[in-house]
Amino acid sequence: MSDTNGIVPFPVAGGGASGREIETLIALLAKLPGLGPRSARRAALQLIKKREALLSPLAQAMMAAAQHVHACAACGNLDTVDPCAICRDSRRDAAVICVIEDVGDLWALERAGFFRGRYHVLGGTLSALDGVGPEDLSISGLIARTAPGSGVGEIVLAMNATVDGQATAHYIADRLHGTGLKISRLAHGVPIGGELDYLDDGTLDAAFRARRTL
Amino acid sequence: MSDTNGIVPFPVAGGGASGREIETLIALLAKLPGLGPRSARRAALQLIKKREALLSPLAQAMMAAAQHVHACAACGNLDTVDPCAICRDSRRDAAVICVIEDVGDLWALERAGFFRGRYHVLGGTLSALDGVGPEDLSISGLIARTAPGSGVGEIVLAMNATVDGQATAHYIADRLHGTGLKISRLAHGVPIGGELDYLDDGTLDAAFRARRTL
Repeated sequence: MSDTNGIVPFPVAGGGASGREIETLIALLAKLPGLGPRSARRAALQLIKKREALLSPLAQAMMAAAQHVHACAACGNLDTVDPCAICRDSRRDAAVICVIEDVGDLWALERAGFFRGRYHVLGGTLSALDGVGPEDLSISGLIARTAPGSGVGEIVLAMNATVDGQATAHYIADRLHGTGLKISRLAHGVPIGGELDYLDDGTLDAAFRARRTL
Repeated sequence: MSDTNGIVPFPVAGGGASGREIETLIALLAKLPGLGPRSARRAALQLIKKREALLSPLAQAMMAAAQHVHACAACGNLDTVDPCAICRDSRRDAAVICVIEDVGDLWALERAGFFRGRYHVLGGTLSALDGVGPEDLSISGLIARTAPGSGVGEIVLAMNATVDGQATAHYIADRLHGTGLKISRLAHGVPIGGELDYLDDGTLDAAFRARRTL
């Protein structure tokens, strides 16, 4: 076996992969949430091996998404039509708007399938640390949508139960104060299937305070 | 809030995502190793949000890989050129061929950067259970590459230390028996940084048997 004397190492920018195309593919895949450098390499290898079954369809699906998917001008949901399918659906209750931080939260509620009103995607939370102010979120859009005469009667503030999420909910509740709209938030408490022994103190405290008489 | 009476649920095939393009994207992303349905949704959302920075470049990188990346006719490595960059590199020792199961193993060895010979990618292991026989792997290609007059002097069998990997290594060693080639395999033992208390019995046994006099 030859020694390393005088031998320039093979370029390994993409982690040992040869070919600039593969290295670029790995580097971009590694930017996806949930994929680190190692799993990005495995994914790239899988993609190239399954060229017809996976690589080409995925590339086409991405092209199609880049071209056709846009944010709904009314609610901020992502869809190929604008207004989005939920805003268009006349069977859904236009009197109730559920305000969420992100489209992922909308998807979670739609999977659960119980909510039949409409949505408003804020696009994040207020955050002093990250310099996100009210003008960076679609709060004025929400206020315009819920103005008198809009037919909206209730706003459900379904922010995450985090400090930033709850601060944002309080801010919106303040802004909507005096409009006569019913403003609600999700209940805090023991999750279904949850065991007390594994819950944090804050959740236990909230569940205890909000205890209900049987 | 409206009740569910008479209201057809919103289609949630893609897990609550609206738009066929998004659902297709999520379904294809979920086929990547390391991405489950939940992380595929997060990845799709991230992609659509970072349309210019991530979605379009990744789609283009996939198109480029699908078009330009091919298996090297000599060694089975994936590259945009054929023979691949490693087979073309005259600074690498053509007398030593390291046989690996998969291109991912080649990348791992190239990242480590110590091996300066050439490779041969088998494309898997023999497996009675999965019905993989010698003709399904590039074993005849290996034998042709190492025929007398080829200049090859040593074959390093670097299969994984699994039952199938080791069975494949034995099979190849048998096939090459009597050719005069030096045939070696990777050493088994305690991994660098490994703690005895956390090692399996098989590794401890192998390390003990292969102990070296200081």
